[in-house]
Amino acid sequence: MSSQTNGTASPKRVGVVGASGYTGTELLRLIHGHPGLELAAATGDSKAGTKIADLYPSLAAAYGDRQYEAFTPELIDGLDLVFVGLPHGISMSVVPHMRGRVGHIVDLGSDFRLHDKTLYPEWYKAEHTAPELLDEFVYGLPELFRDKISGAELIAATGCNAGASIFALAPLLEAGAIEGDGIIINLITGVSGAGRPPKENTTFCTVDENVTAYALLSHRHTPEIEQALHERTGVEANVLFTPHLAPMNRGIISTCYGRPAQDGLTSDDALQILADFYADEPFMVVDERSPSTKAVTGSNSVHLTARVDERTGHVMVISVLDNLMKGASGMAVQNANLALGLDETMGLSSIGVYP
Amino acid sequence: MSSQTNGTASPKRVGVVGASGYTGTELLRLIHGHPGLELAAATGDSKAGTKIADLYPSLAAAYGDRQYEAFTPELIDGLDLVFVGLPHGISMSVVPHMRGRVGHIVDLGSDFRLHDKTLYPEWYKAEHTAPELLDEFVYGLPELFRDKISGAELIAATGCNAGASIFALAPLLEAGAIEGDGIIINLITGVSGAGRPPKENTTFCTVDENVTAYALLSHRHTPEIEQALHERTGVEANVLFTPHLAPMNRGIISTCYGRPAQDGLTSDDALQILADFYADEPFMVVDERSPSTKAVTGSNSVHLTARVDERTGHVMVISVLDNLMKGASGMAVQNANLALGLDETMGLSSIGVYP
Amino acid sequence: MSSQTNGTASPKRVGVVGASGYTGTELLRLIHGHPGLELAAATGDSKAGTKIADLYPSLAAAYGDRQYEAFTPELIDGLDLVFVGLPHGISMSVVPHMRGRVGHIVDLGSDFRLHDKTLYPEWYKAEHTAPELLDEFVYGLPELFRDKISGAELIAATGCNAGASIFALAPLLEAGAIEGDGIIINLITGVSGAGRPPKENTTFCTVDENVTAYALLSHRHTPEIEQALHERTGVEANVLFTPHLAPMNRGIISTCYGRPAQDGLTSDDALQILADFYADEPFMVVDERSPSTKAVTGSNSVHLTARVDERTGHVMVISVLDNLMKGASGMAVQNANLALGLDETMGLSSIGVYP
Amino acid sequence: MSSQTNGTASPKRVGVVGASGYTGTELLRLIHGHPGLELAAATGDSKAGTKIADLYPSLAAAYGDRQYEAFTPELIDGLDLVFVGLPHGISMSVVPHMRGRVGHIVDLGSDFRLHDKTLYPEWYKAEHTAPELLDEFVYGLPELFRDKISGAELIAATGCNAGASIFALAPLLEAGAIEGDGIIINLITGVSGAGRPPKENTTFCTVDENVTAYALLSHRHTPEIEQALHERTGVEANVLFTPHLAPMNRGIISTCYGRPAQDGLTSDDALQILADFYADEPFMVVDERSPSTKAVTGSNSVHLTARVDERTGHVMVISVLDNLMKGASGMAVQNANLALGLDETMGLSSIGVYP
Repeated sequence: MSSQTNGTASPKRVGVVGASGYTGTELLRLIHGHPGLELAAATGDSKAGTKIADLYPSLAAAYGDRQYEAFTPELIDGLDLVFVGLPHGISMSVVPHMRGRVGHIVDLGSDFRLHDKTLYPEWYKAEHTAPELLDEFVYGLPELFRDKISGAELIAATGCNAGASIFALAPLLEAGAIEGDGIIINLITGVSGAGRPPKENTTFCTVDENVTAYALLSHRHTPEIEQALHERTGVEANVLFTPHLAPMNRGIISTCYGRPAQDGLTSDDALQILADFYADEPFMVVDERSPSTKAVTGSNSVHLTARVDERTGHVMVISVLDNLMKGASGMAVQNANLALGLDETMGLSSIGVYP
Repeated sequence: MSSQTNGTASPKRVGVVGASGYTGTELLRLIHGHPGLELAAATGDSKAGTKIADLYPSLAAAYGDRQYEAFTPELIDGLDLVFVGLPHGISMSVVPHMRGRVGHIVDLGSDFRLHDKTLYPEWYKAEHTAPELLDEFVYGLPELFRDKISGAELIAATGCNAGASIFALAPLLEAGAIEGDGIIINLITGVSGAGRPPKENTTFCTVDENVTAYALLSHRHTPEIEQALHERTGVEANVLFTPHLAPMNRGIISTCYGRPAQDGLTSDDALQILADFYADEPFMVVDERSPSTKAVTGSNSVHLTARVDERTGHVMVISVLDNLMKGASGMAVQNANLALGLDETMGLSSIGVYP
Repeated sequence: MSSQTNGTASPKRVGVVGASGYTGTELLRLIHGHPGLELAAATGDSKAGTKIADLYPSLAAAYGDRQYEAFTPELIDGLDLVFVGLPHGISMSVVPHMRGRVGHIVDLGSDFRLHDKTLYPEWYKAEHTAPELLDEFVYGLPELFRDKISGAELIAATGCNAGASIFALAPLLEAGAIEGDGIIINLITGVSGAGRPPKENTTFCTVDENVTAYALLSHRHTPEIEQALHERTGVEANVLFTPHLAPMNRGIISTCYGRPAQDGLTSDDALQILADFYADEPFMVVDERSPSTKAVTGSNSVHLTARVDERTGHVMVISVLDNLMKGASGMAVQNANLALGLDETMGLSSIGVYP
Repeated sequence: MSSQTNGTASPKRVGVVGASGYTGTELLRLIHGHPGLELAAATGDSKAGTKIADLYPSLAAAYGDRQYEAFTPELIDGLDLVFVGLPHGISMSVVPHMRGRVGHIVDLGSDFRLHDKTLYPEWYKAEHTAPELLDEFVYGLPELFRDKISGAELIAATGCNAGASIFALAPLLEAGAIEGDGIIINLITGVSGAGRPPKENTTFCTVDENVTAYALLSHRHTPEIEQALHERTGVEANVLFTPHLAPMNRGIISTCYGRPAQDGLTSDDALQILADFYADEPFMVVDERSPSTKAVTGSNSVHLTARVDERTGHVMVISVLDNLMKGASGMAVQNANLALGLDETMGLSSIGVYP
């Protein structure tokens, strides 16, 4: 039985700006099933006037003939909260104009995740055009920064790869079990993270029956991971992050390797550190089982395990999540719940659609 | 915003007998998110004592350390409703002993779907051992037989392939637009319909990158389709049903061909017949768009289209559904809602997880 | 042990015009392994100057630093044979200028398959610009039209869907076992048939875990099938052809339904008709086994079976082939072998890469 | 044009013991297309009497009605070479009885790969029953140990994961560019490596849309990798090997991380070290491109790249191969060619089937 209750309060009115991408579509699904939210606006400039159901027939039964609208500031005036699902570089030009018009903004993109503006030209190859907002945004990873997120006006939801990796590494770093130097993150992700528009590297015939590594040494989630680990644990972490693309729609598995900072650390110790860190977290599952991405498809859950290899001197932590749920839209709703003072788990399933 | 409301009534106590298969797992997911149901028993004889989360990590965050139990009649005594997800041939030996102990029984198997006991030896190659119950079971396809299902004690939920095909054909037959003779159903299904236990024809390396037809001329859903079409429309339909297995987890597409019974029937006419038949049905979407299985993954929706080929003299109707949802557990919950007097759509999403 | 022998003759010099698509790539693979052919030119206008291995790393070990060239008529002057792998509409403007410069032309596109020029505006929505060539081209389906193909100057290789369907239907039609009216072809194809360029309907996230029907009533291979069946059997066939897209790279399964033209026809009869028709054909396998697409991946083989459903009055024939091999480049090489007087099977494997 | 020539020599007569598994099936494909080999025996005890084409329809056109035979020593008497594709533990009991009866034995299993018999109880959990043969077997990785393999009587072909990883690491270790300590191998493999028999972890519904890590800290290829690296380079390497299972039939990508042993090593240096090591190797492709598993499907090629991350102090080498070809049967044929004095590349394609 669901524990979700609507209570007597009227639902919060929310908007989705950039609703025609995959994260926007997942938000439309989640908002429709959320007892405390009501969709007041769904914009998609390049798709304005298109029926939502024509672009995403999965939404047909729920959204009928509703169309995407072109964004105007007036469209969102007075909304309780706006989710922003715009491409990198666009968000930073739009968000400044939204501020003050709406109660809260949850940005799913990367434009406001890094606090240090010099990281943008280094990793994103362009200057930030609204650097004054960088310090006002809270980094939206609820399990690590819940206090800051609760009631916050401006939230930058964590990137999918970053979230998976931070969930794995933060507990061990915080416990002093691994060193900040020498961390390797070997990650495998499904294809939906690359978004809806067709590209040469996301056609079926390119991706199916294929695994390849990409963005070698240069993936943009690298500084985000280092920043969040430092912000939470105080340790200057230094990570080599290598993502791989696998033939699946959704799912991320982050296999993280660290150098032990303690003598005699065992696999049981590492598992216990994870279990303690995530005790009482409704979406976090720590177990000796090796986690699989499919177990979290469509859910907001994260599964983790850990091992210590005494033979070679490594600590290994593995985490999985659904990149469109806990890695994007699910986490965005969780952030929104915290911002709006709703039950943090409202509208979010912890059970994946399996198989 | 979800329209589901719990109201003030206490939840109905339900059991799942045969909870360790794929349909049982889907039921555990649905019951957990259903505001009106509470899981009182989950049995799986071959898995008794196993943690649910160890067999299905997707359920870990919700079910924690809960284990499958061995079935005993006492376990279900007094429950409001029991879902039965047992293999063909087992159900008919168990259900007679359940009767009277529980309020309602929704059987997801095929043992009680056919009213004519002689069809069992013909299509299932074995005599029925509880033929006296055949007439007491209602055929559980809510959109076609809602009145009989409401409040019913014994419900035999429709087979996945059968449901997809009946949804496509019943409106045209009922409208007198196609003939009962000469119907061809060419269906393509995902692999989960074959169940969890490993078999030679369901290993990844057998199925992936492969499509094959199976059960040529002899699939057991054939008489079920003919019976339901007759029961609903009065027409003696006569169908050649050819299923194909495609490399996907879930999803059925049923492409049905009939011979026009009316002169001058157009594609628009055929679409209108479908639209009229399913007007006001919350899970049924009729559109000119060619439906895709992925649009209904994880949802209880059915998408349909139709065409009339005047050049060659055929009517074509295409339907898609998720075999584990509308084709099994979702439909079972819809039947249960009707049996228990709950809102028919309670706990059932009409939006698929996409992509 | 391979039966291929080079003999003492020097290899034939061939060109591939339009070498950067999937059929061109398959030709480059086949030509490299063909003892009787030598690649003299590989053109790809939009990719001229690009290293073949950069676009298709699968060819890296064999083609090293070789680049695609821009097409010029001079480039192909004096070649023994040219394969043309250009999009519909382009081929008809290029081929007239090739004629006379090369010994033989095998066109893999659709521009010269139909003999009746009025079919182009009807099915392809444009007038043919070189209609005078239509009667000079031989339809390149070796198992049905071998005599015409042997030594021919101009060959239009069969379309992938058309080939699969013609292979299934021609024997039964020729034997008078089915009627020409009322034929239904329900076909399922992999994605590579849609070509390399990214499109909305061929991204991984659109196609994976999805089956959908497309080109309802209007697929362009329809008239080609009807023409070839008539040309071979003399029967005016009339087919409703419905293709479906399945999540796999390669492979076509054509499930064909006909109305029996003879009383008492049995499944054994139908199988025997197929077996007789394809006796002594090295690439054709007729068996009671239900064929699977994966069994022919990477090979030039076709697998077929048949059934007669006496209960409902239908004959069913099922065929499978690899759309890039027997459905395109493999058949093109087979045609080229016949045109050039080489052993018809040279350079073509009958064994698929499995699994 | 193929460079394969048969010459005037009569073909070598070979047997495949354990022909009904995936590696055996790949051997039957390769032997059929090999100008210098003739299949004299194909045994499969559990499948004796079964038509090869019924178990593997992909072989139907080539093998017709041929059946698997039950193994008897007499069956292989006098053969030039026998490929052994038996499960671990069986091979060590059968091979001693083959010796002396045949010219050469190429074992595709793991029973004779490790020279140190104490490693078997440690990693394989059982004593070796024929330890006296361990030193007589040559480790069959041609690009690293060609001289020993040429003409050898007993060859233990490299494991698929081991081969991919050794190819990546040996050049850097041999050049003194990375340290022997602290090596991490993060590998992703397709499903065919798990073999044909159905298992809970290889059903389609378990594997599809899923990635998971397995055999954490304990995979049996670990000591094989360490042994081969030491044997070739003299360095005592020490590796943490973590395999992941991805939803694809074939393919391995091994992403290897080492600690630089030299100051100032650059990505260009690392690439040059690989290029020099594999200069003149027909199956080895070194490039700055990030390699993809699909590019080598069905071929005997290996693609490699490398990077040095000066920021975090790591060297990364990535290699891909097809686990059934270069990782098993292709490499076995390459070994056989060397053993029999044939051209090393005979019967082996360097071009993959793509897409």
